[in-house]
Amino acid sequence: MITLFEQPDSGNCYKVRLVAAHTGLPIERVTVSSRDGSTRTPEFLAMNPIGKVPTVRLDDGRFLGESNAILLHLAEQTPLLPADAYDRAKAYEWLFFEQYSHEPAIAVRRALVTYPERAALATPERMAQLLEAGNRALGVMEARLAQHPWLAGGAFSVADIALYAYTHTAEEGGYDLAGFPGIRAWMDRLAAQPGHVGLLD
Amino acid sequence: MITLFEQPDSGNCYKVRLVAAHTGLPIERVTVSSRDGSTRTPEFLAMNPIGKVPTVRLDDGRFLGESNAILLHLAEQTPLLPADAYDRAKAYEWLFFEQYSHEPAIAVRRALVTYPERAALATPERMAQLLEAGNRALGVMEARLAQHPWLAGGAFSVADIALYAYTHTAEEGGYDLAGFPGIRAWMDRLAAQPGHVGLLD
Repeated sequence: MITLFEQPDSGNCYKVRLVAAHTGLPIERVTVSSRDGSTRTPEFLAMNPIGKVPTVRLDDGRFLGESNAILLHLAEQTPLLPADAYDRAKAYEWLFFEQYSHEPAIAVRRALVTYPERAALATPERMAQLLEAGNRALGVMEARLAQHPWLAGGAFSVADIALYAYTHTAEEGGYDLAGFPGIRAWMDRLAAQPGHVGLLD
Repeated sequence: MITLFEQPDSGNCYKVRLVAAHTGLPIERVTVSSRDGSTRTPEFLAMNPIGKVPTVRLDDGRFLGESNAILLHLAEQTPLLPADAYDRAKAYEWLFFEQYSHEPAIAVRRALVTYPERAALATPERMAQLLEAGNRALGVMEARLAQHPWLAGGAFSVADIALYAYTHTAEEGGYDLAGFPGIRAWMDRLAAQPGHVGLLD
């Protein structure tokens, strides 16, 4: 069985549980945390030299990190990875957009708001920059989702899973989704998919 | 023929020219730039709503952005995308590492050093943070490359192309590669590959 080393409130870790839920893959869950040093121990760094979660141990004992790399690996040969080459390329595009332009604003601002030990880093200037960057990323999603039910191609895919993970907690970071009706309808659509699990399930 | 909309000194755009060179794919090149506003025109945003380079127009007229998504798309069905599922997953892992932990330090610091219009953003505190983050990313690469010739699996792949793009310009951003002999040997090995092209070729 695959083992997921996770921080339970992490959206990046939640992506792995979502793809497992939708593909029927059983996983064992082990809690570690960037907040208590357990992702920086020699034992953890031997599994993942970057010292980050999620990290998975595969059936053969080898390790894999980077949430969206894990998504792609687990989704191969399933309907969650589009079969059409262009739709698949657009899924890749959304996954890299998520890690470069979305998560570094929306997930980071949520952590600054909700983790007391990070409050000193939440300067007004930084919070304003993150708000602007996150709203720009949400605008890119809205432009797509106002016109189409899913992000890449015509069906629910790894792209939707990757972007949902932190978009659905954006309000915890101070983002107002009222002006993004396409995103809100898409989140409802995604949460209504058979097999859906919540962040804290 | 594929059209590459590129900023000529951009490492992210260089990745696309490297994968094209190694797969024998002819490309037409069109220069645009984030520095003169030409990636923010309505015409450009209609091609890529994120307003970033590289953007490619494929043979059928459809568009694709995000450098590493373009790499994966163009490398499918070629030896640059590992055939083994785990090696391929490790290539994905390096591509996401590059966009999250490497490029935002190493490429950004180079731009702050070399683009005069960004000098005001290059505060001592930010430059120190970027130096530390970039050296940490280089350390992760070194740990791999001190032991193995290539990043993912046993052969030259898209992972090497993606990481080479900005690693080989790291010294322009103030990073010292003297302490990373594995990286330096890997860069020499990569530049000696048949079909290699330089950043400004």
